[in-house]
Formats: sequence, structure tokens, C-alpha cells
Amino acid sequence: MTIKIIMDTDPGIDDAAALTMALNDPEIDVKLITSVAGNVTVDKTTKNALKIVRFFNKKVPVAAGAKQPLIKEFEDAARIHGESGMPGYDFPEDLPKPLNMTAVEALRKTIMESDEKITLVPTGSFTNIALLFSEYPEVKDHIERIVAMGGSLGKGNMTSAAEFNVFTDPDAARIMYNSGIPITMVGLDITMKALLTPDSLSKLEHLNEAGKMLHDIVIHDGDNSLNGIAMHDVNTIFYLLHPEAIKTEKMWIDIVTDGPAIGETVGDIRGAYHDGKTNANVCVDIDAEAFNKWFLDEVSKINM
Amino acid sequence: MTIKIIMDTDPGIDDAAALTMALNDPEIDVKLITSVAGNVTVDKTTKNALKIVRFFNKKVPVAAGAKQPLIKEFEDAARIHGESGMPGYDFPEDLPKPLNMTAVEALRKTIMESDEKITLVPTGSFTNIALLFSEYPEVKDHIERIVAMGGSLGKGNMTSAAEFNVFTDPDAARIMYNSGIPITMVGLDITMKALLTPDSLSKLEHLNEAGKMLHDIVIHDGDNSLNGIAMHDVNTIFYLLHPEAIKTEKMWIDIVTDGPAIGETVGDIRGAYHDGKTNANVCVDIDAEAFNKWFLDEVSKINM
Amino acid sequence: MTIKIIMDTDPGIDDAAALTMALNDPEIDVKLITSVAGNVTVDKTTKNALKIVRFFNKKVPVAAGAKQPLIKEFEDAARIHGESGMPGYDFPEDLPKPLNMTAVEALRKTIMESDEKITLVPTGSFTNIALLFSEYPEVKDHIERIVAMGGSLGKGNMTSAAEFNVFTDPDAARIMYNSGIPITMVGLDITMKALLTPDSLSKLEHLNEAGKMLHDIVIHDGDNSLNGIAMHDVNTIFYLLHPEAIKTEKMWIDIVTDGPAIGETVGDIRGAYHDGKTNANVCVDIDAEAFNKWFLDEVSKINM
Amino acid sequence: MTIKIIMDTDPGIDDAAALTMALNDPEIDVKLITSVAGNVTVDKTTKNALKIVRFFNKKVPVAAGAKQPLIKEFEDAARIHGESGMPGYDFPEDLPKPLNMTAVEALRKTIMESDEKITLVPTGSFTNIALLFSEYPEVKDHIERIVAMGGSLGKGNMTSAAEFNVFTDPDAARIMYNSGIPITMVGLDITMKALLTPDSLSKLEHLNEAGKMLHDIVIHDGDNSLNGIAMHDVNTIFYLLHPEAIKTEKMWIDIVTDGPAIGETVGDIRGAYHDGKTNANVCVDIDAEAFNKWFLDEVSKINM
Ligand SMILES: [Ca+2]
Ligand SMILES: [Ca+2]
Ligand SMILES: [Ca+2]
Ligand SMILES: [Ca+2]
Repeated sequence: MTIKIIMDTDPGIDDAAALTMALNDPEIDVKLITSVAGNVTVDKTTKNALKIVRFFNKKVPVAAGAKQPLIKEFEDAARIHGESGMPGYDFPEDLPKPLNMTAVEALRKTIMESDEKITLVPTGSFTNIALLFSEYPEVKDHIERIVAMGGSLGKGNMTSAAEFNVFTDPDAARIMYNSGIPITMVGLDITMKALLTPDSLSKLEHLNEAGKMLHDIVIHDGDNSLNGIAMHDVNTIFYLLHPEAIKTEKMWIDIVTDGPAIGETVGDIRGAYHDGKTNANVCVDIDAEAFNKWFLDEVSKINM
Repeated sequence: MTIKIIMDTDPGIDDAAALTMALNDPEIDVKLITSVAGNVTVDKTTKNALKIVRFFNKKVPVAAGAKQPLIKEFEDAARIHGESGMPGYDFPEDLPKPLNMTAVEALRKTIMESDEKITLVPTGSFTNIALLFSEYPEVKDHIERIVAMGGSLGKGNMTSAAEFNVFTDPDAARIMYNSGIPITMVGLDITMKALLTPDSLSKLEHLNEAGKMLHDIVIHDGDNSLNGIAMHDVNTIFYLLHPEAIKTEKMWIDIVTDGPAIGETVGDIRGAYHDGKTNANVCVDIDAEAFNKWFLDEVSKINM
Repeated sequence: MTIKIIMDTDPGIDDAAALTMALNDPEIDVKLITSVAGNVTVDKTTKNALKIVRFFNKKVPVAAGAKQPLIKEFEDAARIHGESGMPGYDFPEDLPKPLNMTAVEALRKTIMESDEKITLVPTGSFTNIALLFSEYPEVKDHIERIVAMGGSLGKGNMTSAAEFNVFTDPDAARIMYNSGIPITMVGLDITMKALLTPDSLSKLEHLNEAGKMLHDIVIHDGDNSLNGIAMHDVNTIFYLLHPEAIKTEKMWIDIVTDGPAIGETVGDIRGAYHDGKTNANVCVDIDAEAFNKWFLDEVSKINM
Repeated sequence: MTIKIIMDTDPGIDDAAALTMALNDPEIDVKLITSVAGNVTVDKTTKNALKIVRFFNKKVPVAAGAKQPLIKEFEDAARIHGESGMPGYDFPEDLPKPLNMTAVEALRKTIMESDEKITLVPTGSFTNIALLFSEYPEVKDHIERIVAMGGSLGKGNMTSAAEFNVFTDPDAARIMYNSGIPITMVGLDITMKALLTPDSLSKLEHLNEAGKMLHDIVIHDGDNSLNGIAMHDVNTIFYLLHPEAIKTEKMWIDIVTDGPAIGETVGDIRGAYHDGKTNANVCVDIDAEAFNKWFLDEVSKINM
């Protein structure tokens, strides 16, 4: 049985890899892709999403979303993802058109018209999701769960407190975590552990054209190191397909929307401050070797 | 020349009076009415808006808006406005239907399709406005200005810090004040001064059917006192038509979205903390006698 | 029976007037005066307190206190109180020496060695009081109550939210309000109403030498208006002696220590948000005529 | 040349070990020990400090400090350190008396009377330090630097955001970080890495009586694991003596005093948000093997 998902995304190098996995794995059925400002502006993330869809000749619709966060000033991550957000590979230029409606409208329509509940997979900032829940709260009953890349129990990557996706729009993150929908937090606690190793990377290049494309953009990631490259957003898809390889803990997560820790996901790790209640399923450990193996397998199976 | 406005409202007794003035004054052209949760739930505020439109046999469309604030829990004011939000008068039951689109969609469409810039007159919490600006930032260039009931430099009416409309959805208020659109704050500083006097109230009852309707609902206001009844939202319309009767000061307004002062509009009254910059035009004094006189004149001219 | 008090003060024009009343009224026994940075630096407030003690030839000891707030940057009010803090009158230069211990040490010693419980009357920022309670919590059981000038339910005088004394050191104010000691808040809600009228002021000048001194410094107050001059700190002494002339309400007061409303005293005026609990007795109305009459009577009785 | 230090401490198992090192290393001259509420109440931490001084027959004076944090409610760590704070060893009962003055007074006197500048080594919450700086700001010029155990760039141990010492009194921590004195943050980033290994622990038991004492209390630490036991406070002394074994980075540290991340030390790890300014020297990596070796060497050299 396939998992019906919507990807809400800001490609971005790792988003492109996550889209690649989601669009090509037979167990996943991507009903819609929505874009959001994040790694680069929403014009670019929309175009990048269309490039990936076109590259794999898929029919998945793409809808353009929020141009900026709800309250906080927009601050991109072009220092990591390059000016275009997805540098290093020549994609075809004959791109499909995005839908003639906003991400919020497309999300509502897709969710309400689906005969099965949908799983939301946001891998950018959560502005579209927040707007959707605020304008159309009735959709909440039609969402199976949320598997969101963002946050960190340990060290952040913007300040020591905050991870990029939550930092970009903390108010939206707070609205999403307040929604009452089951949510799994895929944060830096695992994505900084499941690095794509140099060995995996060199194998990737020669697997097939999909592998070459991924290789060529991944090596442009500004955050690479000797030990490997973090594939942040890809961990959401890996978790959907292989939850057995990731350890999770239920806990209460609060989102900080003000002050020096703005954008932080604070976990009540000792269960001491929320009367024993939890509101999230937090990924705390991952089998990094299994992740690397799966990543290569997944790409090797892509027929284009 | 008429002023083209959109009323975003949560009737509510004083909202009903504000709608009455706006719908019937020849200098004002109401292009759209949008409803929002506030004094009572959005189902009721939508119905109440339709009742007023129907009562005056107007063709103004009504679109239903946000069911709850962006982040803060919804807390109504039925203790002031009664369970229905507009008690004390038997309105016709054959109501028009609201538009088949949300307030946000109707706002976007009306603003973008208007050949002149629109003045927004929000007299409830600012959730619809915040969602509109977040989802469709392009509308900002097509808005003339915002004249919003809400806030207080002096004492609030929820806590000593916070006025009801801002308190209901402080995050939305912050988004609205951050929009860059010229905004006039019509707050308790004038609305608690321009009370409808007992004398005005007894005259109102016998002016005509509109006067009787207003009288009958106004006397159900839970906040009345010996000195008169505050007509909060009506001050926005009075300001549009008679700015000469209201004293304003430009200053910087910050919105408090957290902590004990949540929902407060903090004015930099000494101009000491924002490098001389201002972001709002704040109503600080009003000619209460002129307000009463205008109120009665306005109602007396209504032909039904 | 006399009321044993300690004045913790930052003279300051109105502080000088409050000291004048306290030192000369036979029903009040001032055991100690402690100074704090506020209207001007602590060097100056200490010297000004000594000037008043010397002027009236009293033996009350003076101890110098905190040079700056606990956390917030120090910001004086010399724009209101002049460079010296107490301009306009030539005081004798042969001043007594302050105690050879800090305000905190002197407060502890005086409170613990008193055979009766002491009433604290802080009319500056609350830094000394906060330090005292933190370093010597045992003193709390020996304090009858606190009657403190500071705060506002309505409009502040620094921002629209914050009154000067609380704004100067909000963290100290929070510690004081958390102490569990009965506290009466004498704020702008009454001090901006009980103005010393121009008529009172002209009578004051000719009463006696004390009256002349007060007149000469009061007319240098930078905040005077046509309607009169606020005698903020003096209201604490008036309240001690004539509680019947001031209306109070019990409510919960929260102190804002961060964000745009920093320094505000937020009152739960509807009793809606603290489970019916209260932590302060708040002055909400005053008989301004009685205040003026008492002020002149009090000064006229001073024999020097 | 010896390093003249004051230990401000809440023993506590790891505090006891830190005191052991400081009191016995010939390069360190402990001028004063002050106690503070933290792991257990201040009565117990004072007694525990005296036990260590007595155990080693040292003459170092001990002064009792703050009973509770400045603002936040006191929350001990008896779950980790046992009811007594230092369980598992029978210390002599004939203890010396603490000084007849508070920690703040003793700190002031010791610092001001020293002919050389003093290094402060706080290993509990920072309440005494905050009170000292607030009441006697003149001491700041006589302090060489602060080497403080507390905080974390990565995961905390109270919430995911906050480490125990900073969490206990975040307002005091903020005052300390605002003091302008050079400060080194010895936080969980190194103390959770330099674990005392099971092998070190078994060697420790048989070194000498000091080793046996440390072994017997350390094995009662409630936070031990298979990999070893964190010796948090001891890292401050190791850093004083062997800075070459610890990697530090200069950055700006903000302290969170409110909201869900209360008690967090937020580091501007990318140097992006404070105009290139830094206010702390933060320990980010440590040679854990060198730490273990030094620990055993240090204890082995103790002659009693
Ligand atoms: Ca992403
Ligand atoms: Ca309203
Ligand atoms: Ca004063
Ligand atoms: Ca400790």
C-alpha cells in the first residue's frame, strides 16, 4: 500500500534529493508539491521543484507558496545552496507550469478531495502549513500525520539554539506544532549523523543519470566536510519507508518565537515540565550506515 | 468622492452600529464585508453581518473568515455582546448567503479587481488581514490605508495592558502593523471618551426604524455605565468622515505577543526608543459631543 | 502610635517633598533613609537625601545604595529633575555623612534590630529592595508591608506601557512583587490625578521656610502643566496617613521584564487570569482636593 | 606563580571533586569558598564545602551564600546528588564554622583586600556573583577573569535547551555575562565528553584516601552511564591548569531568562547576529584522555 504524501519544500540541494526519492519510490505517491521561500526565494524554489518533476518526467502538480515568513524577516541560505538553490547541473529548460492557485489553495483542494488521509512532508519553513491550518482548519481531520524536517534538541545551525527551517519562520512552526495532528520531528539530531559519506558520493556519480544529477548538485553544498554531507530533508523520506532504522522519543516540544533563542525547538527531555504530556515524536538516533545503503539502492532503482 | 472600503468585522453590537453607518453614508462605498471570530464565533458574526446587510436591503457581499486566532486560544466576549453577539432586536430570517469563498480569497479578489485603492476598516481581531498579507503580499500595493479599531495607549479592557481586538489575536495584529501600509489606530483612548450618552440613546430610539434597531441592541451592551455606552467600532467610520474631530499623533506602536502584557499596543509616547521613526497614526483625543451629534444625524438620514 | 518606616528614595523633586512630609509628620517615625540611582546618579540622590535631613536638622541616618539596575541599562530622568536632581534652592553645604555601610546592610540591620515590624516606602527604583530580599530573605518576616510608588494601570510615562520607577529596574520590581509581603502600588493612576494646583503652589511659597524650599524646587519640575504638578512620591505618605482618601482594589500585578512593554505593571483588572488570586493592593482613585489641602496643612505645621 | 581563585560552589559530587583539585594543587591558591543553593539547599552545600576543607585540613574560609535564585523558583538536583548532596563517604563531624558574614560580603572583602586580581570559579548557580556585582560594582576592576561551569551550546540537561547551573538562576547568569569581565564558559559541550572512565574510577579507589573519598561519592552520581561519569565542575580547574587540552572559541553568548528556553546559553555560532562582537570564551572540545590522566595524577599527589 502506498503512502499518499504532499511535499512542501524549498529546493535547495537536500530538498531536491528528497523529491528524487519521493517521486521515484513505488511505495510513495506524491499528490502535490508546494514551494515556499527558504533556502532561496520562492520564485527559485518553485522553479527548482519544477525542474526535478520535469527531470523525472512526472505529472505531479506544483503550486507556489509563501514569499516570506509570517512575522520574522526573511533570511535565505544562499551561502549554502548557491544563488539558484540547486547549482551544478544543467536541467532541461522546458519546464511545466505551476498550478494557477496558491500553495494554500492547492493544499486544501488536494487534501479535501483525497479519498485517503494525506501525510504532509514539509522540508522547508512551515509558512504554507500555518496559513493552511489558519484559513482552513477543517483540513486537519483529513491529514494522517506530519513528518517535518526541522529543529534540533542539540546544537542548531543558525545560532546554537536554532535550526534553519524553524528559525526561518518560528511563528509558523508554532502554529504547526499546535495543530493537534501527530507530528514527527526529523531534526539535526539525526540529519547531522546520517551523513552521505565520500564513498557513497563517489558511487552515486556513476549509478545512472539520476545519480549523476544528485552527485553534481550535492557536491555544491556549502556545508560539506571531510566526514560527509548532511542530506537533511532526505531523512523524512527514509523515515517514512524505514522507521525501524530511526529511534524516536515522544516528548513535548515548545517553539521559541522571540528573544535570543528564537527558532528553537525546546524538548522537555526529562518529561518534567508538561505534566507528562507529549506533543511530538522526535527522531533522536539513526543508523547512518543503513541510510547510506538505502540512499544508493534507491537511486540505483530509478528508471528514466 | 466616495471612500471605497472593506469592513472586516465581528458583529458584535458596536460592529453592527459601525456597519449601519458605513452602509448608509453616501460618502462611503462598502465593497465587501468579511467576518471573523471575536465577540462571538465566526458562524455568528457572519450571520450577524448578513442580518445588517439584509436589514438595510443592501447588495454588499459578505465572506466568512477565520474561525480562530493564528496562535492564541480563542476567547470570545459573549459576556458583553450576549450569546448571539447582537441581541435585543428581531431581524428578518430570510438572509442572503455568504460568498462561496473565504474572507481571504474575497479580500484578495475585491482589492485586486478594484480600479481604486481600497481602505481597510477592520473592527474585529486582525486574523483575516494577517492571512491576506501573508498569502497575498501583492495586495499591499492596492490598499490606500488601514483604519483599525483596536489597542490602547492607556488602560486596556482585558488586562490593564490589552484591548480586546488586539488581545484576541496579537500575532495577527503584529503582522498588520508590520505591513508597511499607513495605519490609523482607533483605540480605547478615544472610544472610551466618545460615549453615546443616555440622552442620545433615548433620542435614537425614536428617530426611525434604524434608530430603534440600534437602540434595542445597544442597550444590551454588557459594558454600559451611567455616563453612556462606548461605540468602539463606530469611531472608525466617524474618523473616515470627520478627521477634524479627532486628534491623532504619529508614533511607533509595538505589539506584545507574549508574556503578561500579551495583546498590548505599546506606544513610544516620548519618541525615545525608535530612532525617531513612527509606524502608526494614533487617535489620542476626540470631540465627544460632535460624535454624539453626528451619530444621531447619521441615523436620522437613513431611508429604508 | 507612630508608623515606623524606611524611605528608599532617589531625590528627585517629588522624593524631596515626600521626605519632607515623612520627616516632619509626628505620626511617622523614619528609621532610615536609603538612596538609589534613578532620577539622577546615586551619588547625587544620596547627597540630596542628606540635604533634606540637614535642612530639617533631623538625625535620621542615610545609607547609599545601588549604582545601577540589576540587569537593564541605567537611564536617568535629569530631563525632568535637572542635573542635580533637586534644583532651585540653596541648601546648606555642611552635610552629615552617610553611613559607612551599603543600603542593603543598613536595611538589614535596621529591620532586624527594630522591635516592631517596619513599613518599607520605596519611591525610587527597587534595586536595593531586590538585593535585600535576595541576600537576606529572613528580613521579610520583619516587614509590615510595602507602600511603593511605581507602575500604572493606565498610560505610563516612559512608554505608553511603563512608569519610570518600574521601567528603571523591572527585574528588581519583579523580585519585590514576588516577595510575598503585602504591597500597595501607588502608581500614576492616582499620582497623575492628585496634581498640586497652581493655587496650592502659590500658597506654598509663603507658608514658611519649608514651604519656600518645596516651592522653589517643585517649580523646576520638567513635567509641570497648566493644571498642576504631579507629586508622585508624596502620595505614598498621604496614603499612609489618609488611606480613606484613596480608593484601592486588590488584584494580581505582573511585572514585564522583557520586550516592548518592559517595565509595565500589568493588572488583571477583570480577575480573569490568575484563578482569583491577588498579590497587590492597587491605588485606583484619589481625592485630589483632600490631597492638596493636606499637603499645605502638613507643610504649615513644620517648625524649624 | 600561583593562580589566586575563589570557588563559588554548591557541592554536589562534582563540586567536591573540583574543590579537592583546587585545594591540593600547588599552582592554585584558594582564597575563599562561597556556597550557594543549587544541587541541594545552601545549608547543605555550606556543610559539604566545610567537610571537604576539613577532610584536607585546609584553612580556607567558607562563607554561606544565597538561599534561592533571584527570581526563578528554586529547584534542586537531589535526584542526581542524593539528599545530602555528597553521599557515600563518612566525613569527620568536627567541622569548622563558616564565616560570620554572607558570601557577598566575604567576596567583596577578599577581592578588595587582595594585592593581586582574583579569578572567580563559580561552579553552582550564579546568584552570589550577581548580588556581588549589583551591590559592589567596584569589585569588577579587581577580578582577573571568570571561569564558570554552566551552559551548553548543544543539548542541555534540564530541558534540551538548558543546563542546570544556568537554569537554576538565569537572571543571575545574565548579570554575570553582562559584567564586562572576561569569562570562559565551561559547559556541557566539554563536560559530557571528558567522562571519568570506569577504568579511571577503579584506579581512583586505590590511589589513596583522597582517591577513596572521591570514588565513594562519585559512584553515587545519579547520572552515571556505561561510558563513564561526567565530572562537570572539575573541568574548570583542569582548564585553569591545562588550557592547552581544551579548545575554545570566542563568541557572543546570550542568556534566556524567560519562555520555554529559559536557562539557555545561546551562542552566535556563525557570528551573524552581534556585529562581530563576542562576550565569552566558550569551551568547545576537550582531550578526554588527558583529562582522565590528569585527574588520577592530581589525586595521586595528594599528601594528607
Ligand atoms: Ca529544505
Ligand atoms: Ca468589533
Ligand atoms: Ca522617586
Ligand atoms: Ca556544581
